[in-house]
Amino acid sequence: MDSRLLAAFDPRSVAIIGASRHEEKIGFVILRQLIRAGYEGRIYPVNPSAKEILGLRCYKSVADVPDEIDLAVIAVPAKVVPSVMRNCGAKGVKVAVVISSGFSEIGNKELEEKVIRIAKEHGVRVIGPNCMGVFNPEKGLDMLFVKDELLPRCRPGSVALLSQSGSVGTNMMSALRKMNMGLSKFVSYGNKADVDEADLLEILREDPTTKVVSIYLEGVRDGRRLMDAIKRTVPVKPVVVIKVGRSQVGERAVASHTGSLAGSSDIYLAALRQAGAILVETFEQLLDVSKGLSMQPPSGGRRVFVITNGGGYGIMAVDELERRGIVLPRIPEPIKRALREEFPPYYSIDNPMDLTADSTSDQYRRAMELLGSSDECDSLLVIPLLGIPGFDPMEVAEVMVDFRKRFKKPIVVSFISHTKETDRAKEFMEKNDVPVYESPERAALVIQKLVEYGEILRRIKSSRR
Amino acid sequence: MDSRLLAAFDPRSVAIIGASRHEEKIGFVILRQLIRAGYEGRIYPVNPSAKEILGLRCYKSVADVPDEIDLAVIAVPAKVVPSVMRNCGAKGVKVAVVISSGFSEIGNKELEEKVIRIAKEHGVRVIGPNCMGVFNPEKGLDMLFVKDELLPRCRPGSVALLSQSGSVGTNMMSALRKMNMGLSKFVSYGNKADVDEADLLEILREDPTTKVVSIYLEGVRDGRRLMDAIKRTVPVKPVVVIKVGRSQVGERAVASHTGSLAGSSDIYLAALRQAGAILVETFEQLLDVSKGLSMQPPSGGRRVFVITNGGGYGIMAVDELERRGIVLPRIPEPIKRALREEFPPYYSIDNPMDLTADSTSDQYRRAMELLGSSDECDSLLVIPLLGIPGFDPMEVAEVMVDFRKRFKKPIVVSFISHTKETDRAKEFMEKNDVPVYESPERAALVIQKLVEYGEILRRIKSSRR
Repeated sequence: MDSRLLAAFDPRSVAIIGASRHEEKIGFVILRQLIRAGYEGRIYPVNPSAKEILGLRCYKSVADVPDEIDLAVIAVPAKVVPSVMRNCGAKGVKVAVVISSGFSEIGNKELEEKVIRIAKEHGVRVIGPNCMGVFNPEKGLDMLFVKDELLPRCRPGSVALLSQSGSVGTNMMSALRKMNMGLSKFVSYGNKADVDEADLLEILREDPTTKVVSIYLEGVRDGRRLMDAIKRTVPVKPVVVIKVGRSQVGERAVASHTGSLAGSSDIYLAALRQAGAILVETFEQLLDVSKGLSMQPPSGGRRVFVITNGGGYGIMAVDELERRGIVLPRIPEPIKRALREEFPPYYSIDNPMDLTADSTSDQYRRAMELLGSSDECDSLLVIPLLGIPGFDPMEVAEVMVDFRKRFKKPIVVSFISHTKETDRAKEFMEKNDVPVYESPERAALVIQKLVEYGEILRRIKSSRR
Repeated sequence: MDSRLLAAFDPRSVAIIGASRHEEKIGFVILRQLIRAGYEGRIYPVNPSAKEILGLRCYKSVADVPDEIDLAVIAVPAKVVPSVMRNCGAKGVKVAVVISSGFSEIGNKELEEKVIRIAKEHGVRVIGPNCMGVFNPEKGLDMLFVKDELLPRCRPGSVALLSQSGSVGTNMMSALRKMNMGLSKFVSYGNKADVDEADLLEILREDPTTKVVSIYLEGVRDGRRLMDAIKRTVPVKPVVVIKVGRSQVGERAVASHTGSLAGSSDIYLAALRQAGAILVETFEQLLDVSKGLSMQPPSGGRRVFVITNGGGYGIMAVDELERRGIVLPRIPEPIKRALREEFPPYYSIDNPMDLTADSTSDQYRRAMELLGSSDECDSLLVIPLLGIPGFDPMEVAEVMVDFRKRFKKPIVVSFISHTKETDRAKEFMEKNDVPVYESPERAALVIQKLVEYGEILRRIKSSRR
């Protein structure tokens, strides 16, 4: 790990080079957002022609700042970036985030190389150019150049999001926010002329607030380096990857979008899988799986039991689980006998288990307890349909949360929240690390990925013996 | 079509047999909901021991009601249902919805057969038993026995939802409601001892407010009858079907849930496809596709163009479209030349077309206009990422709606709504029949189904020649 890069996430001081008085300029928005986000370090706007911006004293050059600078955010025209970088180097800046565009993405490869050469001479690590940079809500470090009124930010959380593309990354952030999820770190690294996914993985692996690293991947520059970084990270925390450009048309589009080769999909996907990445195929899957893996332990095996009070939903869940290669055993005989004695005769004590519309939260508790204690059950997918008289949503939520606390097995829940009361129950579950999905199939996918991560960890463990 | 069945959806008078004074009883909730929903026909509670319920005069028997009864809702203990049905028959009731359970679903097949025999003798059509019955929001006909505070209802709309299972159906209704969609009709028909999907399709085919019929299907009793009904409906409006019990475990679960055989999946799926049903595989797909087909015309072919200002989202969309067998042609040369002249050189004039973060709504309009007018384009998937300064959400929405009005080609939109302003833009689009999805892959699925429906219609047309 390059410890200089820690300054990208938790700097003691930040210089905004290209800070502006004009509200519509990127250099204004970045400064404004940094202040609004409550960043507690020292902020130094740099602008040769302003005395003060947003109440902060301005400096003509970073050289004039009477303090050490950990992090420089550079938002000046591309052609000025080399000289700015030289100043940053002389000042001892650890990380420079180059927001400016106008480099290799428009064919200006030489200028980009020049900037990186200067940075390397001075030991400055560079994020970008042509990027949106870093967002660390825990530290109030917000350099995203879209106002939060237009792009509301995520609260602090445990998912780290990496995306070359700023627009993909920020829209994923928005989607996470709508799911009521938080972010530990977000990085858009644009042309990744210096810092890339591998560097960032090294940092995030050691980051205590990050439980899952989720990566939107278009092209790969140095495949071996990335695979090695993933391999080193996976034993500590899961790495979820959506690799786009898997189709022929998509591959062509990647080439024209980031100038990088998408590479032969099958080969990359196989390498990523081999390295232990959890691969997903859609935008929504990336978010769902990140949420599930951030809340739940990996599964000890592939035997999953489904419990519901809505028979049809149980069937949809097992259809999807079986399609995904999950094993759905019959209920173990001793458990079946016990529940047969306690439950009404028309309950279906099978897998899926259908407790019908007459079910109570105590009956859920009982069935879950028996399966939780059984060696023959690895994970539970529970579909308690609320909105039924006498089935108190908060009581049901407590049953789910108690299972989460008592057993080390994954539990994933699905129901449609109808009312404020069921919203509260959902919120309570998710605050206590029980993930809820609105469709049984989305919950089934997450179970499958918890199974997959468990298998990856066991494979690593056995290969180390 | 059996015109008696029209009384199930638009009765002039309804008798609630088993109406109750006790708030927790089904017979109370049904009466209460019917009144709250604003049903404008005549309501007659029937209860031998009450004088008045909720301000309505009660009758000892349906025979005593001094009016004709179109529809009887029966919520009395199973063993009383035969005699109640006899009274209904004598009274000339057209449709009886038997909410009561305790029939074939618990092995009480004889009682069920007896009820149906009596009904047939008197010419009464029966929905149920063991069902939740009918909900027709347009007419305020609400007999769902869960209070609307627990289960909020859908507004009137254009999707008809058929589900044996009441819990699956009502939760699908909730999910539609959260998508801000409406329902034309909802029917849960439980054990379907008389009226089944085929009967309901005959009615819904002729129903002017229904644009799409969506069916949750577990078991099929009379395959040929169902396939024939679908075949007759498809030329008029699309029929979307989720057939569950496709997996081995799911098939077993269907047998224990509705007592019906799921039947060999592959054979049913092939027959449904052959009949022209649009098959979907998940809960969410059923809703997404129903929404898309209710708003958009079928596609004239499989050539789809993707336009976006977020390169990565365009790539995700084409990855999914290509996987689904959609053709993604290059931009026709004349259009490419025209746009090359008008647009900045760094825009990617390809498929996907990437207008970058600098795009304007006018540029979207121009590109869409050219593709809309071209014979080489069948459908558009547009991903205008909002939350960018200077890109007015409502202006963008107007561009999409204008396309919808001007061209007969499908347009499906995807973006993540960040703010109240983008929510309003989304709402405006959907009010004007431009469906919006939060992920590019969900939008891609809907495009595929619009293509599929177009192909089904052309197949029917050519086979008629």
